[in-house]
Amino acid sequence: MASVVKFNQHPTETLKVGKGFSLADADPDSTPGYTGNKAEGKNLLADLDGKLAEFQEKLFAEAKFGSAKRILLILQAMDTAGKGGIVRHVVRAMDPQGVQLKAFKAPSDAEKSHDFLWRIEKEAPVAGMVGVFDRSQYEDVLIHRVHSWATPDELERRYAAINEFEERLTESGTRIVKVMLNISRDAQKDRLLTRLDDPSKHWKYSSGDLEERAFWDDYMAAYQAVFDKTSTSVAPWHVVPANRKWYARIAVQQLVLGALEELNLEWPKAEFDVAAERSLAEKS
Amino acid sequence: MASVVKFNQHPTETLKVGKGFSLADADPDSTPGYTGNKAEGKNLLADLDGKLAEFQEKLFAEAKFGSAKRILLILQAMDTAGKGGIVRHVVRAMDPQGVQLKAFKAPSDAEKSHDFLWRIEKEAPVAGMVGVFDRSQYEDVLIHRVHSWATPDELERRYAAINEFEERLTESGTRIVKVMLNISRDAQKDRLLTRLDDPSKHWKYSSGDLEERAFWDDYMAAYQAVFDKTSTSVAPWHVVPANRKWYARIAVQQLVLGALEELNLEWPKAEFDVAAERSLAEKS
Repeated sequence: MASVVKFNQHPTETLKVGKGFSLADADPDSTPGYTGNKAEGKNLLADLDGKLAEFQEKLFAEAKFGSAKRILLILQAMDTAGKGGIVRHVVRAMDPQGVQLKAFKAPSDAEKSHDFLWRIEKEAPVAGMVGVFDRSQYEDVLIHRVHSWATPDELERRYAAINEFEERLTESGTRIVKVMLNISRDAQKDRLLTRLDDPSKHWKYSSGDLEERAFWDDYMAAYQAVFDKTSTSVAPWHVVPANRKWYARIAVQQLVLGALEELNLEWPKAEFDVAAERSLAEKS
Repeated sequence: MASVVKFNQHPTETLKVGKGFSLADADPDSTPGYTGNKAEGKNLLADLDGKLAEFQEKLFAEAKFGSAKRILLILQAMDTAGKGGIVRHVVRAMDPQGVQLKAFKAPSDAEKSHDFLWRIEKEAPVAGMVGVFDRSQYEDVLIHRVHSWATPDELERRYAAINEFEERLTESGTRIVKVMLNISRDAQKDRLLTRLDDPSKHWKYSSGDLEERAFWDDYMAAYQAVFDKTSTSVAPWHVVPANRKWYARIAVQQLVLGALEELNLEWPKAEFDVAAERSLAEKS
């Protein structure tokens, strides 16, 4: 049985998008900070499930006693990059009662009639929760840029609005973790072919997938612009190499664990007299 | 290693509340339809996680192609009976993206100003989802009856309104699974004492727990009335013995699996030309 191999450098640092970051130079096949193999990575993931669940329970518990702390994990990626797998293999370790998951689809007519952040704000996680956005406000500066649904001026307005929005969430207790799962163009082709070869996966496929794929380079440019404009000190981006699904999962797990760790969570102290309640309970 | 022991009688039948059911005669320590022990029960639970996840994914997939099918699992119980454990150990086997969980707390002033079903209807599961209610519309005929917050006439109105509401949900594609986790008064005392003895559980405890516990017999009478009035053919109740947590979990898993099985779920057929798409993808 493979052993558990830990990260030797934390993804919070190695995968962070800082000044001068170039998406074109990021290798989707790489495993930064990790020397273990796939089996060892899977062991690490399983090994830390309990810690993740305990942190999440403490976060939930603190909020019952007035804490404003909460987490927001934002997942963005090209199709097939593995957002769903992150939810199933990382997020699922936590109690469903403490997770607030929202998958953003194409906006409704009513949503379109509001500012783009209107529908996002409504889904911001409640205190004590781990919020997860599967797609997010960033669609409004990604697909909208690629297809020129927004003018350059409007895109600039949106980048600034997103930064202000995220700063406001942070000030009200939200620790934001932004993740872009970075797959290569070739890996996407392989995964689309795999879907086409498995009848139980056909429901996930649509002809539109190939249409968007044709804009690959434009999407990469749009992501680069997002990183340049919105990787802020309060809410930096992390670009996670995602050609190896097992690596992407342990890396995102580390990012979420790191965010929770920074919150210095504690079990709330009892606000009642434990001995007195115990005696009452005994007699009840 | 313990083997997997299956149920010899399905909980859908053995635990169903039919004519003449008496809660006072239901044994919270029993394990109806199951001869295996705790270890074998835990194996069975793990063994069926994959099947549950596959059913749920098919349910989700069908809805993408227009199916109205969905599940609503309603969990009711006295404090400490293990609703949270059902969510963590049974519901969690399913993809979080396909689960719509709602924990109903005391209603807000705005919610109180509406009919009691107003806030419930808003949380009814979307097509393709497994909805889970942790507490539900039944609080309005349980705690409200126990504390006489509703008159007998009003309670009668509510039972009838609940039956009509559930019939309407059923007609629009919802398969409702109603579960009461049945613990004994002694088991609740033990569990409250356990909470008091563990500082990491103090946040779950409040002095109000003992106050409600003092009304135990009134609650049992209120549950009996609920079963008499609302265990209908479209949405029958199931009373699950819950002194043994492992049994309650495998029993509820069976009830959910049974409901999903009745939906005759299939992977949706591709509405595109698979070979043609494959050829386009190869060239992309």
